[in-house]
Amino acid sequence: MKLSPPQTLEQTANLLQAKYEGPPQHFITGLNEIHRVEKGDLVFVDHPKYYDKALQSKATTILINKKVDCPEGKALIFADDPFTAYNTLVRHFHPANLSLKQVSATAKIGKNTVIMPGVYIGNDVTIGNDCIIHPNVTIYDHVTIGNSVIIHSGSVIGRDAFYFKRRPEKFDRLLSCGKVLIEDDVEIGACCCIDRGVSDITRIGAGSRLDNQVQIGHDTQIGKMCLFASQVGVAGCVIIEDNVTLWGQVGVPSNLHIGKDAVLLGQSAPIRSLEGGKTYFGSPAGPATDKMRELATLKRLTLERKTKESK
Amino acid sequence: MKLSPPQTLEQTANLLQAKYEGPPQHFITGLNEIHRVEKGDLVFVDHPKYYDKALQSKATTILINKKVDCPEGKALIFADDPFTAYNTLVRHFHPANLSLKQVSATAKIGKNTVIMPGVYIGNDVTIGNDCIIHPNVTIYDHVTIGNSVIIHSGSVIGRDAFYFKRRPEKFDRLLSCGKVLIEDDVEIGACCCIDRGVSDITRIGAGSRLDNQVQIGHDTQIGKMCLFASQVGVAGCVIIEDNVTLWGQVGVPSNLHIGKDAVLLGQSAPIRSLEGGKTYFGSPAGPATDKMRELATLKRLTLERKTKESK
Amino acid sequence: MKLSPPQTLEQTANLLQAKYEGPPQHFITGLNEIHRVEKGDLVFVDHPKYYDKALQSKATTILINKKVDCPEGKALIFADDPFTAYNTLVRHFHPANLSLKQVSATAKIGKNTVIMPGVYIGNDVTIGNDCIIHPNVTIYDHVTIGNSVIIHSGSVIGRDAFYFKRRPEKFDRLLSCGKVLIEDDVEIGACCCIDRGVSDITRIGAGSRLDNQVQIGHDTQIGKMCLFASQVGVAGCVIIEDNVTLWGQVGVPSNLHIGKDAVLLGQSAPIRSLEGGKTYFGSPAGPATDKMRELATLKRLTLERKTKESK
Repeated sequence: MKLSPPQTLEQTANLLQAKYEGPPQHFITGLNEIHRVEKGDLVFVDHPKYYDKALQSKATTILINKKVDCPEGKALIFADDPFTAYNTLVRHFHPANLSLKQVSATAKIGKNTVIMPGVYIGNDVTIGNDCIIHPNVTIYDHVTIGNSVIIHSGSVIGRDAFYFKRRPEKFDRLLSCGKVLIEDDVEIGACCCIDRGVSDITRIGAGSRLDNQVQIGHDTQIGKMCLFASQVGVAGCVIIEDNVTLWGQVGVPSNLHIGKDAVLLGQSAPIRSLEGGKTYFGSPAGPATDKMRELATLKRLTLERKTKESK
Repeated sequence: MKLSPPQTLEQTANLLQAKYEGPPQHFITGLNEIHRVEKGDLVFVDHPKYYDKALQSKATTILINKKVDCPEGKALIFADDPFTAYNTLVRHFHPANLSLKQVSATAKIGKNTVIMPGVYIGNDVTIGNDCIIHPNVTIYDHVTIGNSVIIHSGSVIGRDAFYFKRRPEKFDRLLSCGKVLIEDDVEIGACCCIDRGVSDITRIGAGSRLDNQVQIGHDTQIGKMCLFASQVGVAGCVIIEDNVTLWGQVGVPSNLHIGKDAVLLGQSAPIRSLEGGKTYFGSPAGPATDKMRELATLKRLTLERKTKESK
Repeated sequence: MKLSPPQTLEQTANLLQAKYEGPPQHFITGLNEIHRVEKGDLVFVDHPKYYDKALQSKATTILINKKVDCPEGKALIFADDPFTAYNTLVRHFHPANLSLKQVSATAKIGKNTVIMPGVYIGNDVTIGNDCIIHPNVTIYDHVTIGNSVIIHSGSVIGRDAFYFKRRPEKFDRLLSCGKVLIEDDVEIGACCCIDRGVSDITRIGAGSRLDNQVQIGHDTQIGKMCLFASQVGVAGCVIIEDNVTLWGQVGVPSNLHIGKDAVLLGQSAPIRSLEGGKTYFGSPAGPATDKMRELATLKRLTLERKTKESK
């Protein structure tokens, strides 16, 4: 999320009652999770394995639980528990505020847009023109929907990110301050779930079509003109480029990148990023022709064994 | 869909401002998509690959984008873009008309049927006797439900077909004019989705049982006394005969035919039609015993390699 | 379910107009399905394959369709159709009683708990303090929810067990008399389904986190601090111990037992119980390192064949 107005290092550290290193007037313009950081952002890091990644990221303020050298042009804020300190900042700059009305008074709804019975619309929601929101859809807070978008019944847009830190005694939630952006001419099937970004935007690109019971995780970026068949599941922080086709029940784990025009056949599940323009199959997914050849080999080997054993 | 009253070739061509070949009084009694055409139907075809299939189908009027010889006893209507011309016909003969009421005034609901809170019922919906429609179910337009049917919460019946033509600039929807028919004594779990036919009927046969989160695509025919476990996905234009059992997370792609009494074990996914009376497993699915033997072979070969390498 | 007050053998047999063997004042303290029986329970059995199991189970009253020797300290009730006789008892002692109100007058809702618009709450529901029930959630009858629980939109809690007997002419339902128990600090994603026990309790252990579109079957026991990613499906009568992680689209068939700290990678599906503390992969699932080695072997063998054939 962007901070508006930007905060100074000093203000922010004071808010946390924390020590800091860097010019007191150093600006913090946003809060972000490590996968999406930009210049001006504050990021947190609490595990030695990720210290270097955070310090070398584009983030210019690092909330950290170790005394380290401050990289040039950056600033540090020290906290024993950066995860909790980050949550304190989110709670302060992005207070949660559930609306108990069926449609929040703050909702902006365009012309010729039809909101059917049983639809819930939370705070900070904008819906463009010529949309149809079918019965019993739920739109949580902080969702922006373009023009000519159709959302079918039972779908849930903007749930908080499924993002937890496992502590010995409980799962600790990273508070979400991100959004959902559904661009123009998107159609979302029935009983789909599209989670909001934990700190950035979950985006469904213009013209894309999602069939029923599709899941899109937090901060995931879906390109334009993608086609996802029913029961596809895409985890958080995934990037899917334009014109990608995912057939039924495909599963894409977090942090992967699927290139333009890629096609994943039904039930496939990549375990690493895939380049565009090819057709993939299998779990774990590989090029479809390779996978089909492997299956044929296994069938032949099995028959050969059987023949040998029966002699 | 059936046209009532039937239209003449001349009327229909005039509606499209299109040229035609055949007797002006030739009757068109229905509109249908190529998978489901019957005598009297108009079908459209826009790809050279499918010209012959359409011309030789049971359809007696073909909406086509090429000057071809008219088969005996049939008629042709010429359009540069048959897909769009067909949509024009659907729009004319089957205008969409969303009801904004919780329960449409046109709904016919049988005796002893319970409609729970939060249920939406659209236009042209008939529900038989002794049914229970649980809270927050959505029933779109053009759905017929028999007697003693139970539909659990969150399910969505009658969404338009997920059927698009990929154009360079956008996905173009084939407008749906089909229906959903749920026969007597069916039970549909929670958060299920059953799409309407694009031009025909999506049918759930009498006595069938669907568990939660099941997806049934457009124009698919499910036989009697079928049992589908949770998270099964069946695509469009599938035929599943009577007494078929699909265990959890099975996926059936479009246009396949699954024979009577077939059993598909959990997570299986056929890639071609399957004959009845057998048990199948795997993705792609094969006879379960073959698949299990293949898995055993692979395990043995892997162990043999390991032993060899460690010598 | 527990019977309150307990019934005598004589009373119960009279209710069924059935003959019995054993002391007329022998107590029946509960009704239970064979997977969950305890001392004092009545269980039914109608298939010779399961006679011994039922007679030797912890149940102390057996409803059976054969004259057998009565085990010491137990009692028998004879019925031609024990399944139907058992349903008669459930109907008598646990009559179904749908509430047509949005929120049943019998619901007990704790302090600081927020019930959002469109939520349905049935009879015999208790919700603790500090919970959030998001819009359009459906909570059927006989559900107990602890403190600090979050349930996201579209989820359906407490549907009857998907448990049928296939008769030649129809599927016959085993009537449910069980419950759902969601312990403290659980979070349930959007569009999840958690079925009630057929005769016992479906339990989600304290601190567990379920992502969107997760299915949990009847009588299943989920331990504490489990993490289930999106589109996981767990069938009925499964036991999952504490701290188990199931990644996206994992499927667990009925009656299995998954040990503490087990991790199942995405799309895995065990076909037998798994010991704890290990990581599993594949469908059918095995230890992840074995499965990965098998996949590598298959790839190598396929390449070797190809090289050989091209010579």
